[in-house]
Amino acid sequence: MPHIALNSAEPGIRGLLRYRPETGRPLSELAEVLLRGPSTLTRGERELIAAYVSALNDCAYCSSAHSACAAAQLPGGMALVDQVRTDLGSAPVSAKLKALLDIAAAARHSGHAVTAAHVAAARDAGATDQEIHDGVLIAAAFCMLNRYVDGLATVAPDDPAVYAAGAERLISAGYLIPPAQPDPKG
Amino acid sequence: MPHIALNSAEPGIRGLLRYRPETGRPLSELAEVLLRGPSTLTRGERELIAAYVSALNDCAYCSSAHSACAAAQLPGGMALVDQVRTDLGSAPVSAKLKALLDIAAAARHSGHAVTAAHVAAARDAGATDQEIHDGVLIAAAFCMLNRYVDGLATVAPDDPAVYAAGAERLISAGYLIPPAQPDPKG
Repeated sequence: MPHIALNSAEPGIRGLLRYRPETGRPLSELAEVLLRGPSTLTRGERELIAAYVSALNDCAYCSSAHSACAAAQLPGGMALVDQVRTDLGSAPVSAKLKALLDIAAAARHSGHAVTAAHVAAARDAGATDQEIHDGVLIAAAFCMLNRYVDGLATVAPDDPAVYAAGAERLISAGYLIPPAQPDPKG
Repeated sequence: MPHIALNSAEPGIRGLLRYRPETGRPLSELAEVLLRGPSTLTRGERELIAAYVSALNDCAYCSSAHSACAAAQLPGGMALVDQVRTDLGSAPVSAKLKALLDIAAAARHSGHAVTAAHVAAARDAGATDQEIHDGVLIAAAFCMLNRYVDGLATVAPDDPAVYAAGAERLISAGYLIPPAQPDPKG
């Protein structure tokens, strides 16, 4: 049960965005830019970084939700996502994506844990400055979102179908909160 | 030296907001709502939570910047901020603010570390649901911002006068990035 009385039964971050729309709007905009905006990283790659960090932070809702989004947008599907989460070293991802996942894992631990060697490895594997920037910020943003979702003890459904349906919706409609609809009763 | 080539010499988060304005805008809006928007917590109290979490995360830039903002807006000034950072138990802050700082410290560690007992203690001290929500989200947001600032190895000035001047500017003008000015040369 959530620590505070929310105004909806929506699980995870969704109930929190609805509870406090003043903070929900910039949070949604940040997710939209980072995970779906113009980038030389694919949407699947960016969702994989989000899923990986959320799994390391043991956030059931975020890791399930973003694993589903990554799986639906990466050729390797959920098998690849699971392999990245359990054994990154052997996972068939590009050297660049692996280096960005290593940076994300370091940033998850602490900003100070991201070393010049991490950054040099990413650059050697072809990562641009903006890809390194976005890798760090995606990791950092999920360190926020995971703490927000679990720090208020929001509900995380057990059924993978819930997250698969959510991923379909996010992939087609994005992260922005739709503006309130006019009341049809006038 | 920052890990990536920024497009300005501005220190800490400022150089990052300028480097990638697409993410800078929602990040600035989030800070504005959380730290300065309408709330039953004073601006000084909210800056103190930000400073406290940033100090626990050992983020020199953010802890200096938000300590300066808190000191300028709390009757106890920097002496109070220092006391909260070094010995919260003995610091003369309200029971409610102390309970919210305890929640923030727990959330900094992990979302799962915020317990029903933490929340009950805050409620017993008079905290509302929205104050508890905002305490968790301020802590979570600074877990992001600290990782962002240090994960990209941005520069943190040593001179306290830099942060005092920054606090004056933030207190008068806020966190929103001003829109680009039209070029006077047309």
